[in-house]
Amino acid sequence: MAVDIDITFLGTASAIPSRTRSHSSLALRVDGSIWIFDAGEGTQHQLVRSDLKLGKIERIFITHLHGDHVFGLPGLLCTVSQKQGARDDAPGDGDSDAVEDGPTQNNSSSGTVIEIYGPVGTRAFVRNSLRSSCSRLPCRFRVHEFHDNPETAESSTEADLHPEELPGRNQIADSPCGSGAASLWSLDLGVFAVQVVSIAHTVPSLGYILQEESAPGNLDVASIQPHLNRNANALKAQGIRNPLSLLAKLKAGSTVTLPDQTMLVPDDFLSKPTPGRKIVILGDTHDSMAVAPVCMGATVVIHEATNACLEQDRQNGASAEEIEVKTIAHGHSTPQMAGRFARAVGAKLLILNHFSSRYKGDESPESMLVMDEIRQLALSTYLLPEDPSEPREVITARDLMTVVVPRRPKRSKS
Amino acid sequence: MAVDIDITFLGTASAIPSRTRSHSSLALRVDGSIWIFDAGEGTQHQLVRSDLKLGKIERIFITHLHGDHVFGLPGLLCTVSQKQGARDDAPGDGDSDAVEDGPTQNNSSSGTVIEIYGPVGTRAFVRNSLRSSCSRLPCRFRVHEFHDNPETAESSTEADLHPEELPGRNQIADSPCGSGAASLWSLDLGVFAVQVVSIAHTVPSLGYILQEESAPGNLDVASIQPHLNRNANALKAQGIRNPLSLLAKLKAGSTVTLPDQTMLVPDDFLSKPTPGRKIVILGDTHDSMAVAPVCMGATVVIHEATNACLEQDRQNGASAEEIEVKTIAHGHSTPQMAGRFARAVGAKLLILNHFSSRYKGDESPESMLVMDEIRQLALSTYLLPEDPSEPREVITARDLMTVVVPRRPKRSKS
Repeated sequence: MAVDIDITFLGTASAIPSRTRSHSSLALRVDGSIWIFDAGEGTQHQLVRSDLKLGKIERIFITHLHGDHVFGLPGLLCTVSQKQGARDDAPGDGDSDAVEDGPTQNNSSSGTVIEIYGPVGTRAFVRNSLRSSCSRLPCRFRVHEFHDNPETAESSTEADLHPEELPGRNQIADSPCGSGAASLWSLDLGVFAVQVVSIAHTVPSLGYILQEESAPGNLDVASIQPHLNRNANALKAQGIRNPLSLLAKLKAGSTVTLPDQTMLVPDDFLSKPTPGRKIVILGDTHDSMAVAPVCMGATVVIHEATNACLEQDRQNGASAEEIEVKTIAHGHSTPQMAGRFARAVGAKLLILNHFSSRYKGDESPESMLVMDEIRQLALSTYLLPEDPSEPREVITARDLMTVVVPRRPKRSKS
Repeated sequence: MAVDIDITFLGTASAIPSRTRSHSSLALRVDGSIWIFDAGEGTQHQLVRSDLKLGKIERIFITHLHGDHVFGLPGLLCTVSQKQGARDDAPGDGDSDAVEDGPTQNNSSSGTVIEIYGPVGTRAFVRNSLRSSCSRLPCRFRVHEFHDNPETAESSTEADLHPEELPGRNQIADSPCGSGAASLWSLDLGVFAVQVVSIAHTVPSLGYILQEESAPGNLDVASIQPHLNRNANALKAQGIRNPLSLLAKLKAGSTVTLPDQTMLVPDDFLSKPTPGRKIVILGDTHDSMAVAPVCMGATVVIHEATNACLEQDRQNGASAEEIEVKTIAHGHSTPQMAGRFARAVGAKLLILNHFSSRYKGDESPESMLVMDEIRQLALSTYLLPEDPSEPREVITARDLMTVVVPRRPKRSKS
């Protein structure tokens, strides 16, 4: 189980950026390692403005190939790659060499491999961009694509590979998930088991569901000790000099029978495991409900909310229904749609992002009021009056905002 | 002749951006119309931070295809295109519709065509990026490429065209220019006659030389008037009721003979034409001297100066010669190299840009001192002690700095 997980929003705009919102990208930091989700144009510029270290980026996940989510990927790869190769990976102004390496320099000495995940077409986009720009990278990369069927998933030939590219996987969908026709892929990425789901949008779009492993429960050693003490001599006669070595067996879930026939049953001495955090990061969508079944019990849901019907819009004659219909027609969601999804999956925290450039992301009172209106719209469907008073929250993301994903409280011994 | 010309530097970094410098791009504004030169990643973000109106962008020129000069082009095209199609082309936060168009929306109702110019490969890069991202544009575009020989310049087939793309020209080099092997292409773009030259870099790189047309001289009407008055009745008898109509002929350079046989010779009454401004914008280069012959008499030269040997570097044991050798090996120039070029062409103003991320672009005293050191290095080769005291200046570019290109003083009647 990880110690610290936090999420930094690098860009929270939809198609058109504004002075206060850059294009889509967020950085998930897990015990120092960074996983990037989407890389809209300007992602590397936002990274150097943040406190995140570019050299710590290990994986980049793309939800879909619309330009506002992916046009920053080639440049990010070039810059991250240089930072991976360099000794100094501090953000901002910090090149250590007196003479700057141009983008064509190849010092491919680093053993680092940047892993990229995305829908069909991600690999071609990366390759074409790097080829057109004659980019050589100081470290290597690998692009894994999620395919619905084996026919599209022919493996890359060596001839197609960029000089710094290693062959990536073309993963075929496990099965449809939930009630809709969504496809599902599974990855074991160490600290997280990742499920990838297809979600409804105008182009193939993905959601990433990250499930942290549970932490095993703790043994109540103080209660076990008297039993061990009582059997110490008998255990020694059996060759067990350190009776505490039996605890590992107990912790692994096996019953231990002592020489005096006392049975130590795990459930009597082991507290329940601490459940891992579940982080749901969805790409653009006009209907996320089909993937709700794999998102149940989310610690945090990050959901787009491109357009909203605000009081000002109502005064101008618009209705919430009318704007929702238009928003869906454009492939997007309203705050209420995001709230309904978060409610359906029982999420503890809903973070809205991917906002129209009308909704400014600064801290002026005017902007904050608009964003609070959007937050209230999401709360109106997320938290109903009849709900028990369990803590649920909605946050509207701003550029360079960092949200800590809290550990779940340990369950007490039942 | 244009009234107002100014240049706004949108990004002044080299390969790696910093908190104070974005990737390469500059906007040349001519009587309101905007021509963009290079579109490194983040160009559209810098545009919305500037006072420039995205809807006024008419032409985009690419010097070379390295990512730090071109990765912002697809996104710029998408956003500019939306602004061209929309009524509201104000920068920043200003979408007028309640529901944001996604990047796949196609409202191709605008008659605007964005003209893009670049080296071989520009068209493929734009097409691949727009195709991968399923981008549809509300207005059309056309990519013109500069080819060295006819073999590479096969015209695009209709099948290759993006849905919003019009066939562009593949222009074959006119002739080698200067003493080197540089190729030269000529364009007549109305307000400017543009010469495009190939310059030495690690990949094909271009320089753009913009020659504004001269303004015709002014007639000294007060001196002509007595001659016309004296001949007024005779002219009337010839059917010339308004003797001032003869001035157009005189202004066009023809001698006018009056009824009393007085000959009005243009040179006696016409001041010399006001020479047009000449703007030289060079892409990355490690040797610009071969193109000096076509850059003679430049009003302003914009030249890269990626690396420098500062006092701090000398204290660390580096020499100017050593850093220049390394800089050239990476395809780049030092401030002294830029200064030598500006001196060779007799430029009135040299603007340095494309700086290593070591050289910060903010206004802190520390950063300003470093940039002044770089400026002095350029001046050391640009302005020699024996030079007559004619005004020559060096500016080190900062992001979002605007420099007015002054009209040349009118030459007095000789």
